[in-house]
Amino acid sequence: MARWQPGTRERLARAALELFSAQGFEQTTAAEIARSVGLTERTFFRHFADKREVLFDGQQSFTQAFLDGVEAAPPGAPPFEVVASALRSAGRFFDDERRAFARARQAVIEANPALQERERHKRAALAAAMHAAMLARGTADPAASVAAETAATVFSLAFQQWIRPGEDRTLAQIAAGVLAEVRRFAAAG
Amino acid sequence: MARWQPGTRERLARAALELFSAQGFEQTTAAEIARSVGLTERTFFRHFADKREVLFDGQQSFTQAFLDGVEAAPPGAPPFEVVASALRSAGRFFDDERRAFARARQAVIEANPALQERERHKRAALAAAMHAAMLARGTADPAASVAAETAATVFSLAFQQWIRPGEDRTLAQIAAGVLAEVRRFAAAG
Repeated sequence: MARWQPGTRERLARAALELFSAQGFEQTTAAEIARSVGLTERTFFRHFADKREVLFDGQQSFTQAFLDGVEAAPPGAPPFEVVASALRSAGRFFDDERRAFARARQAVIEANPALQERERHKRAALAAAMHAAMLARGTADPAASVAAETAATVFSLAFQQWIRPGEDRTLAQIAAGVLAEVRRFAAAG
Repeated sequence: MARWQPGTRERLARAALELFSAQGFEQTTAAEIARSVGLTERTFFRHFADKREVLFDGQQSFTQAFLDGVEAAPPGAPPFEVVASALRSAGRFFDDERRAFARARQAVIEANPALQERERHKRAALAAAMHAAMLARGTADPAASVAAETAATVFSLAFQQWIRPGEDRTLAQIAAGVLAEVRRFAAAG
């Protein structure tokens, strides 16, 4: 398990994930999570709206990491380069300390269809935010949509690889490889 | 509204969509749908498991249309060409008679988050089926995933355009244009 800051929020998140992994998401209550680290249910709800939020915490910062990368791309850069910049920025968001948490989180999500739905929603929200950012840069549709969807797809495929057992490349390295694969795919045939 | 075969199933589907559009999906019951065309609730449930299924009917044939296109691509064709073939095949599935139904259906789905989730699930299931088909052809990952996700994305973007008011190109024509845009996107920069 990754090293953690001693903050209450982080302790609750780590405890939640351990319980979700050990006994299932549905079977775990907020009170139980809090109790397992000597806190009250009330403290839990000061930090998280519900137990699901532990798994989907920080979506705004997640999306913002992509948008920062869009912003960082030079004006007039082709959409492909803007997407590459967004993926590099998002890659920095997922540092190595997060990898163990992300692996355990993924296993919990894969065991629960409602959580999978929430994960798909997260992907759709990312694509929508990227689409708006591409339009704001002056990229018209359908190029803006293609760029936004490619960013979301490449991130998702790279993320799946990043959390595989034994994988030790950074997320940014893997994402760059998947984006290169998109280029090869589109150029052949 | 498109011309319909006189079958009971089709009458029920058309009646359901009219009621969903007029008064909302949540507010409409299966009994009401059946009654509006002089049938019983029991008859409704002989044709559809629930009222949601009216909107997501035929997913198997939908996915099969893509897989038929994969099958139709010559052995050894590059993944991009296999995807193009899948999209042409899927385009034939959505003939012009379906367009009015698809437009009304989309408006109902956009008004209801749970239906949007179901639609995202449909996209994910299509990508998974395409991924399996690409692997079965001997295309390895990450190329197989990139091809599968591109097929799902291009279809989805093309479909959104196909149902826009005033759009009269076929879905296959629009999808070919979006796929060409993917190629331009990946080649620039």
